[in-house]
Amino acid sequence: MNRLICALLCVSAFVLHSAACSAAQVADSAAERMAVSVRERALRGTVAYSFVEEITARFGPRPAGSPAERKAGEWIADEWRKFGFGNVRVEPFRLAVWSRNRDHGSIVAPFGQPLAVAALGGSPATGAAGVEGDVVLFNTLDDLQAAAANSLRGKVAMLNYRMPRTQSGIGYGLATAGRSQGPTMAAKAGAIAFIMRSAGTDNERYPHAGLTRYAGRSAPLPSFALSAIDANQIERLATRGSVRVRLASAATLDMSGQSQNVVAEIAGSELPQEIVIIGAHLDSWDLGTGAVDDAAGIGIVTAVAKLILDSPRRPKRTLRIVLFGAEEASQPTDPFGLFGAHAYATRYKSEITRHVIGSESDLGSGRIFGLDLPDGFAASDFGAQVSRVLLPLGVLVELEVPPHGGADLLPLQAAGMPVFLLKQDATTYFDLHHTAADTFDKIDRKDLEQNVAAWSALLWLIADSEINFRAPPATLAR
Amino acid sequence: MNRLICALLCVSAFVLHSAACSAAQVADSAAERMAVSVRERALRGTVAYSFVEEITARFGPRPAGSPAERKAGEWIADEWRKFGFGNVRVEPFRLAVWSRNRDHGSIVAPFGQPLAVAALGGSPATGAAGVEGDVVLFNTLDDLQAAAANSLRGKVAMLNYRMPRTQSGIGYGLATAGRSQGPTMAAKAGAIAFIMRSAGTDNERYPHAGLTRYAGRSAPLPSFALSAIDANQIERLATRGSVRVRLASAATLDMSGQSQNVVAEIAGSELPQEIVIIGAHLDSWDLGTGAVDDAAGIGIVTAVAKLILDSPRRPKRTLRIVLFGAEEASQPTDPFGLFGAHAYATRYKSEITRHVIGSESDLGSGRIFGLDLPDGFAASDFGAQVSRVLLPLGVLVELEVPPHGGADLLPLQAAGMPVFLLKQDATTYFDLHHTAADTFDKIDRKDLEQNVAAWSALLWLIADSEINFRAPPATLAR
Repeated sequence: MNRLICALLCVSAFVLHSAACSAAQVADSAAERMAVSVRERALRGTVAYSFVEEITARFGPRPAGSPAERKAGEWIADEWRKFGFGNVRVEPFRLAVWSRNRDHGSIVAPFGQPLAVAALGGSPATGAAGVEGDVVLFNTLDDLQAAAANSLRGKVAMLNYRMPRTQSGIGYGLATAGRSQGPTMAAKAGAIAFIMRSAGTDNERYPHAGLTRYAGRSAPLPSFALSAIDANQIERLATRGSVRVRLASAATLDMSGQSQNVVAEIAGSELPQEIVIIGAHLDSWDLGTGAVDDAAGIGIVTAVAKLILDSPRRPKRTLRIVLFGAEEASQPTDPFGLFGAHAYATRYKSEITRHVIGSESDLGSGRIFGLDLPDGFAASDFGAQVSRVLLPLGVLVELEVPPHGGADLLPLQAAGMPVFLLKQDATTYFDLHHTAADTFDKIDRKDLEQNVAAWSALLWLIADSEINFRAPPATLAR
Repeated sequence: MNRLICALLCVSAFVLHSAACSAAQVADSAAERMAVSVRERALRGTVAYSFVEEITARFGPRPAGSPAERKAGEWIADEWRKFGFGNVRVEPFRLAVWSRNRDHGSIVAPFGQPLAVAALGGSPATGAAGVEGDVVLFNTLDDLQAAAANSLRGKVAMLNYRMPRTQSGIGYGLATAGRSQGPTMAAKAGAIAFIMRSAGTDNERYPHAGLTRYAGRSAPLPSFALSAIDANQIERLATRGSVRVRLASAATLDMSGQSQNVVAEIAGSELPQEIVIIGAHLDSWDLGTGAVDDAAGIGIVTAVAKLILDSPRRPKRTLRIVLFGAEEASQPTDPFGLFGAHAYATRYKSEITRHVIGSESDLGSGRIFGLDLPDGFAASDFGAQVSRVLLPLGVLVELEVPPHGGADLLPLQAAGMPVFLLKQDATTYFDLHHTAADTFDKIDRKDLEQNVAAWSALLWLIADSEINFRAPPATLAR
């Protein structure tokens, strides 16, 4: 660790000062040397990039419950077996499968213009003629919620919330609130359809797909995302007079579908019953090929597991890799979705206490710039060791409690499993997320490999330790 | 003109050396002072930007022969009258109107994936089931031309030519050759459909619309442009095995349609019978709102005419502004199109000898970096004067013979009218050209005003001169 980096670290996260700067003089442990070695091997190139290429070119879009999702899962399981991963299995579960089929939108007055729209997941079909009405704009979800009963009778409610661009991607939260709750609020005020400025940060002609909330067998109204540019155009037209739109969707819901998780292990050398879980999700939205969301995550966790398997020795604990199916699906029976995550948590209920910690890679292939560890560990000796290994990659161990381990780990987290978060730069992620532009060409190989390096080095340290992450460290570092 | 700029000019275009550097010491003429004044007024802001906003927001896409094109023409004529332009008229002409209606493409094997496609203008409808076949790739038009008869029986021919990115936009030439001739060549080899990597330079999920050549009442085959990313995906799939696609189009052709040119004048003060013509085109493709192609041109020529009209005095010659209809349309009766241009040239046949020079603004709103004058004039006193007025805008008077005055002026040029070319930076123009992303937000106001400044200053000098551009200058400058 050179002086400058040490100085920067101390300025940025002063609590780490004593741990990081003094620990730098402590002799490297064998685990730390292995972690550095796996990090350096990762930077020389891994299977991650070609794995993303294979998944996106062999299977294309992989909607939850689709044949493509299933075939991708089977192919990945085979590749994992060839790599020598242990105990590889595909674990199916039931799923009601929503399919977009064809959808269509247009401005019909003051003039005809096609709209770039995508029905929200869970939105009902409209019939071929579609629904047609004048647009009423709401800049925030609060404004829509305040709309009086019957005030939107015969109208199309449009939520015009602009998602802010942030490095963390935190702006997505309010945008998804609009997407999931907007249709219900619009229905309460009598609207015939709901449209929204996409939950995204681009200025392109791509709608961003995404789930809305079910009410019975479908969303309360035909509900669509509009591209940012189409939202701009409606906004501009609305300053001149009324704007009438027509929206059509041929979506279907197959109640008897299924999806699957794909699971494998690198057995631990000394504490194989203790499981460190890393995940990504198998499905993607249907408009692109799901390269950043989430073939990137699949490539990263695959490459991490392979690097650790190929190491001169294995860490003490078992590394379990899980590709969750149907992360992007919600359900009539459970509007909050994460069906693969719930299926996993149910199946492995008796093992959850043996899951020592976990995380999911599901924010694209942007560089990692930070790490959140469970409460208290950033300032521990372990945190200092992690910092020494990750700082050369530009990753700062930060103090932020509690970390968010990824959507698919929420059920496990709810059951008491600790999580960590390798924080990715998501500045441009929501330009692509859930759009037709989420394709292989968007993957930056160098950034992807930096992810693999950070994950594999950190995972090595975690899996070769005996730390109980459920219990905050008793003593802080010197 | 400062020393540095003079030095740069002399390095860049040494032929101009004596003219530009010695003429700098010559006293400014009244015309030159007026040109400088109009240039400076332009840089303080003009109607161009708001005019582009109005056209794209009031009328949206303006396909050749559509009601939107007609309404836009009528609205512009009214605005021009309000500005005080003279002799404003709308001049209709007959047109067979091709309409896209709905089109659709998808990969059907090795897996299902939607393709971002757009039927080429002139492409016939396929019926609802569409056409389906395995793809055969050709990297160049020559390769496709070399395909043996019957070698593509039952296949979909795909032209995979990649248009290079250039400042001048010159890479578009070969791409359009593929678009217009590819279907005929594919048909000769027995193909059932033609698809092409779009004539564009972006790496987005937007197909670029555009014309293909008619053979009788329609193009020889159902013909579609693919987005660059979809072309990449087919390319990658083709390395693994056969790729099957399905393509459908509901295009129609209405033989009894019409379009129109919109014409106005700023009458000359001393030589009103001499006409300097500046053009743009009224129609746009249907996928975007035609902001860069060519509402920008409409905004520019409108602002130029208004600036010259609002000057303390008018130039000697008449400035005629023409918005050509149906620039983007070809026809069963004339596959080379430019129907508005031909209608104008026919209507004003007897006046063409009085058209002293002309040009069209039809390459978006990118900055102007160069000027091509008719043969011999760059190195004349007039060229030196133009150079003094335009160089502060970053515009270099270049020697390139012959200039290209814009597609709509080709019939007039063929009839002997000289043209000039203000060369725009088209580095990113073909990212947007003919796509759904050609929308108002792409207009850079400062660049647009720089266009207006260069056009208006140059037009002032041309229109206030008595130069015969049909005759190369008798003596070159000192």
